[in-house]
Amino acid sequence: MPVIQCDIREGWSDEQKAALADGITSVVSKVGNVPVERIHVVIREGRGLHFMFGGEHVAEYEPPGDG
Amino acid sequence: MPVIQCDIREGWSDEQKAALADGITSVVSKVGNVPVERIHVVIREGRGLHFMFGGEHVAEYEPPGDG
Amino acid sequence: MPVIQCDIREGWSDEQKAALADGITSVVSKVGNVPVERIHVVIREGRGLHFMFGGEHVAEYEPPGDG
Amino acid sequence: MPVIQCDIREGWSDEQKAALADGITSVVSKVGNVPVERIHVVIREGRGLHFMFGGEHVAEYEPPGDG
Amino acid sequence: MPVIQCDIREGWSDEQKAALADGITSVVSKVGNVPVERIHVVIREGRGLHFMFGGEHVAEYEPPGDG
Amino acid sequence: MPVIQCDIREGWSDEQKAALADGITSVVSKVGNVPVERIHVVIREGRGLHFMFGGEHVAEYEPPGDG
Repeated sequence: MPVIQCDIREGWSDEQKAALADGITSVVSKVGNVPVERIHVVIREGRGLHFMFGGEHVAEYEPPGDG
Repeated sequence: MPVIQCDIREGWSDEQKAALADGITSVVSKVGNVPVERIHVVIREGRGLHFMFGGEHVAEYEPPGDG
Repeated sequence: MPVIQCDIREGWSDEQKAALADGITSVVSKVGNVPVERIHVVIREGRGLHFMFGGEHVAEYEPPGDG
Repeated sequence: MPVIQCDIREGWSDEQKAALADGITSVVSKVGNVPVERIHVVIREGRGLHFMFGGEHVAEYEPPGDG
Repeated sequence: MPVIQCDIREGWSDEQKAALADGITSVVSKVGNVPVERIHVVIREGRGLHFMFGGEHVAEYEPPGDG
Repeated sequence: MPVIQCDIREGWSDEQKAALADGITSVVSKVGNVPVERIHVVIREGRGLHFMFGGEHVAEYEPPGDG
């Protein structure tokens, strides 16, 4: 029944989000001896402006260019 | 002063969201003898990919088709 | 997969907490057509001082006296 | 290491969001004698419908008109 | 209707907690032009072990000695 | 700047909590290419009664007996 919430800056690919939830589920299950069936992970994302860390706003995500 | 937060997968209609907040407010008020005026409900929604449950990602919302 | 979090002031009885989680689970299931098996409710409690509402701290819980 | 989360209705300008995070960081640092480097602020925003307060949904944000 | 949640390490005095909630309410009200009546602040506290920051656990709170 | 919150039922040892925060920090850092210095993990714990999952309350933690 552990519930894990992740607030991240936007820009993670779908593969990264899937790996994040997978990895966290695995850690919780192994460390806490909790069946995977009982673990809930929620991911939320937001703009860089929505995160302040150490008194500075996080930079906005810049999609990789192709130039 | 209870604060209730709901993280749901996107796809609920406005009517469903309104009913969710109404229903939760009512439960909290009745069970806890708390005046409705002091109850706060926050709803957040996200893609299916943003929810992992039992080790599997929740399916993405598919709007009902009309075909 | 909905996750519902409730922050309440301490003082609710076990019966009230059980009814709170039951009632919220029921509302979420009915309104959102979500199987009960996929609903997670977390309750957290704290002192009145830990809640500020409308600019005023919530009164501390006073257990009922027997005098 | 304090973590502060803010759920607000959409409609705040970037300047307001920046001032919100700045102001909260400053309050936490001064009141708790915590170095700014250790303070994390997360802002999340949502539609008015996603907030119920006192049994009523919060009005949707209306961008200022120019008529 | 803004809801602000603060997770802090235990050890803040009641006066500090009151000042934290007061200060945050004031910032939210002024920056967002929100009536104080509609602002909710929740404080939660935990052991140092319950906070990991920068890969290191936060030290446990040590009450001031009198030696 | 990712912030990860974990709500777990009480009963985890200090070693398990440390391993939980370490493991999550590692997953977030590797998957998201985020420096460890910018990752925040918060753990909260509560009684079994404070968790409802699948319509049933989680059992209360029973410390291991020595009989």
